[in-house]
Amino acid sequence: MSDTFWKTALSLVERNKILIRGYRVQDLMEYCTFGDIIYLTFKGELPEGREGQMIDMIITSSTDHSFFAPSIDATRFVASGGVPLQAAVAAGIISLGDHHGGAIEQCTKMLEESVKAGTAAAEIVRGYRERKQRVPGFGHPWHDRDPRTLKLIAKAGEWGLAGAHLKLAESIASEIKLPINIDGVISGLIADMGIPWQYGRAFFIIPRAVGLAAHAVEETMRERPFRVIDLKDVAYDGPPERDLPDAAKKSKR
Amino acid sequence: MSDTFWKTALSLVERNKILIRGYRVQDLMEYCTFGDIIYLTFKGELPEGREGQMIDMIITSSTDHSFFAPSIDATRFVASGGVPLQAAVAAGIISLGDHHGGAIEQCTKMLEESVKAGTAAAEIVRGYRERKQRVPGFGHPWHDRDPRTLKLIAKAGEWGLAGAHLKLAESIASEIKLPINIDGVISGLIADMGIPWQYGRAFFIIPRAVGLAAHAVEETMRERPFRVIDLKDVAYDGPPERDLPDAAKKSKR
Amino acid sequence: MSDTFWKTALSLVERNKILIRGYRVQDLMEYCTFGDIIYLTFKGELPEGREGQMIDMIITSSTDHSFFAPSIDATRFVASGGVPLQAAVAAGIISLGDHHGGAIEQCTKMLEESVKAGTAAAEIVRGYRERKQRVPGFGHPWHDRDPRTLKLIAKAGEWGLAGAHLKLAESIASEIKLPINIDGVISGLIADMGIPWQYGRAFFIIPRAVGLAAHAVEETMRERPFRVIDLKDVAYDGPPERDLPDAAKKSKR
Amino acid sequence: MSDTFWKTALSLVERNKILIRGYRVQDLMEYCTFGDIIYLTFKGELPEGREGQMIDMIITSSTDHSFFAPSIDATRFVASGGVPLQAAVAAGIISLGDHHGGAIEQCTKMLEESVKAGTAAAEIVRGYRERKQRVPGFGHPWHDRDPRTLKLIAKAGEWGLAGAHLKLAESIASEIKLPINIDGVISGLIADMGIPWQYGRAFFIIPRAVGLAAHAVEETMRERPFRVIDLKDVAYDGPPERDLPDAAKKSKR
Repeated sequence: MSDTFWKTALSLVERNKILIRGYRVQDLMEYCTFGDIIYLTFKGELPEGREGQMIDMIITSSTDHSFFAPSIDATRFVASGGVPLQAAVAAGIISLGDHHGGAIEQCTKMLEESVKAGTAAAEIVRGYRERKQRVPGFGHPWHDRDPRTLKLIAKAGEWGLAGAHLKLAESIASEIKLPINIDGVISGLIADMGIPWQYGRAFFIIPRAVGLAAHAVEETMRERPFRVIDLKDVAYDGPPERDLPDAAKKSKR
Repeated sequence: MSDTFWKTALSLVERNKILIRGYRVQDLMEYCTFGDIIYLTFKGELPEGREGQMIDMIITSSTDHSFFAPSIDATRFVASGGVPLQAAVAAGIISLGDHHGGAIEQCTKMLEESVKAGTAAAEIVRGYRERKQRVPGFGHPWHDRDPRTLKLIAKAGEWGLAGAHLKLAESIASEIKLPINIDGVISGLIADMGIPWQYGRAFFIIPRAVGLAAHAVEETMRERPFRVIDLKDVAYDGPPERDLPDAAKKSKR
Repeated sequence: MSDTFWKTALSLVERNKILIRGYRVQDLMEYCTFGDIIYLTFKGELPEGREGQMIDMIITSSTDHSFFAPSIDATRFVASGGVPLQAAVAAGIISLGDHHGGAIEQCTKMLEESVKAGTAAAEIVRGYRERKQRVPGFGHPWHDRDPRTLKLIAKAGEWGLAGAHLKLAESIASEIKLPINIDGVISGLIADMGIPWQYGRAFFIIPRAVGLAAHAVEETMRERPFRVIDLKDVAYDGPPERDLPDAAKKSKR
Repeated sequence: MSDTFWKTALSLVERNKILIRGYRVQDLMEYCTFGDIIYLTFKGELPEGREGQMIDMIITSSTDHSFFAPSIDATRFVASGGVPLQAAVAAGIISLGDHHGGAIEQCTKMLEESVKAGTAAAEIVRGYRERKQRVPGFGHPWHDRDPRTLKLIAKAGEWGLAGAHLKLAESIASEIKLPINIDGVISGLIADMGIPWQYGRAFFIIPRAVGLAAHAVEETMRERPFRVIDLKDVAYDGPPERDLPDAAKKSKR
């Protein structure tokens, strides 16, 4: 290994052969759900229970949130500039940062570290309060009974996939009197599957690519190129029109 | 509709309600595969046959192609710069252009227009030859019996999902004596499902997000930051070291 | 050269030495304007006249166009997602496609090919009309006397930098009775400098990075995270809320 | 202001009028260097001394670093996928994160906060050591006498633009016995100009767009599409080829 520039344990490609974590791609195509593949890719082994189907549910929950997600708006503006589909989708994906789905990363990390260290909900909450930070993964501006979180929590119970991490998330929720939001539930579920927090945002990036692609195509097929906002939606509060100072007019050219 | 800036037929979000093409997201989570959701999002209705599962197979085929895909290499370099996961994934997605999966778009368009116009394979091939262009979707540098295409074609036959578009692709293949490649088979299948060619690249973008996320995490966890290539891999053939011409030295500052 | 993976004529880096097209970077820093560097990088040699300063004027013209440019809006939405500065800037840059500054590429190509072939303005215009396409680089929704184009054309005349390409653009403008727009003037000027059309969009990408960076920082410092649009600006015209068909409810799980 | 969705103090656009921080764009084009415009855009006022020319020097220093910068490699791979110029440039820009030019942000922040609080170099260094972190902006793998930093420091002295922040950076350098690197010098200089640290990375993003554009064009014009790495550069250390476990073969389809 030491002499090669590129090293991976993820996949192997040879003539007429593609292996994902050792399995032949045609076997995976035949027998696995897309959620199984995500689990296999990130963890290295196929799930033994219904984890793959739980991931199918997770990613089905987050494909689109209409124009109320900055990712969708960004992709619509970019698509209107006249770019290939993958470029418009990529622009929306870039926006999935700390304030937009990114909390899955922070929340999963917090749950994984806390369960490992045996830190109780009350202590976790106290820590965030002392640092004057919000606990990531709780509360939502509109959805106080989010149909996505309710469904995920119900199925996790039914399928025996709710463990210590989701339980800790629920304890934190009752401590801070805010519901677990969709980021927080996904965090609890993937932590309970043993998926490292570094993969957290992927559970939002992958499905959102579906919605972003559809919005990019809809923009192109239904709207005029170069989307322009309305003058009345803009306010300028910088300096009024002014002349250059005389000193600046000594041309440097 | 005429007065609103943002218009969509894709999704509706209200307090505690998220609809995708009219269906409640929690119902879709309960009963549908991820492939069903992609079909619904792009076509507007749920599949009546096994189209959703065919899409599951399609996207399972294309998550990763190791370092032999420029998308993977690009994401590894970008991840090494120290960026959030979604940004590294987005950089790889940008690369999925005309030469890298983008042929799905061109091939689907060609198949859809040709079937509609009743153009035969020989005539299509003649047109490309006259324009000195390659027919998009045929031939592969390594895989002459690609396990992915063989599996997709077999299942499409078994499930009754192979129609006029895939058949036309097969006729073109025997005309030019090159196998249909993975882009070409996906094109035939989605055209047979009635999905407009504008969505073509999405069938590669969505699954590749899985592989790109895994490579970004692997880069971060296994490699040192700021991946640097080896000096011996670089050749410079520009002008040798030289002094500025005297005229340029009349400083403009 | 044949054995190395990476080849370039642009730059050379060795211990304590950085050469751009053969010149030492510290010499360029001492004596050249940024426009000189752009000229040198793209053409391979330093300008002999005032081309570098003309490029300084070109890039100064296009840093910002307020929210009326989709690039700015896209960057504001992406920045609101909580991402690093370079990621927010990149998202805006992606939007600079065929309908948003990208016309510099198409227009420069057309001017370079037409001057080379000796095609007259009337013939060029006839060709676009027959293909039912707009001639790229002419007309603007608001600016009929764009202060940027007037200044560039005046200075090009004064500095002896207006040649056959800009002249052809002016002939096309009088043929179609639309003013040359900012894209068109930049195209004429860089074609007259002998810069290949493939670099065209760079003259918009580079300066726009300045405006995008400033808008990203302003978004972060003045606005709340996760910019959400107003409900009244959204219209949904897809199917109304509906139940899954019974057939779909035969759970696949 | 309170009723409008978009608010800015950066620019104003009306019919035939474009103002940047209140100045007419045609006046800025006539009299200012590109560095002046960057200063004006970020600070709100034109420089009174030679700050604009110092910024011209800063951005001239960082356009290209050959293939030894991950940004350049990423853009080459992405360009090879067959994408528009702006998309290839954007992919490289995304890589300019914490480990690749991003230190300008961290270093400027540290210098601005330390000068404000009166924290001495020794104390700063002690803090980083206690947190087991590297001080951002110091040391370079190859350049121990970087021609870029030497030139910038010399000119800043000559032009009276070296102040408390650059001085503090020099004190830190002698404390940790590592030279200030290019990120660190830029940080000291822009902090001395009173530019907030949030803009720091922009001083690397803007010039690098020049080099990325040139490398994207060179890739397209000199290389074959779809750049493929050599088999010998790849090592796989994941599981060997294996069959699916029987349990997984109970098809879910």
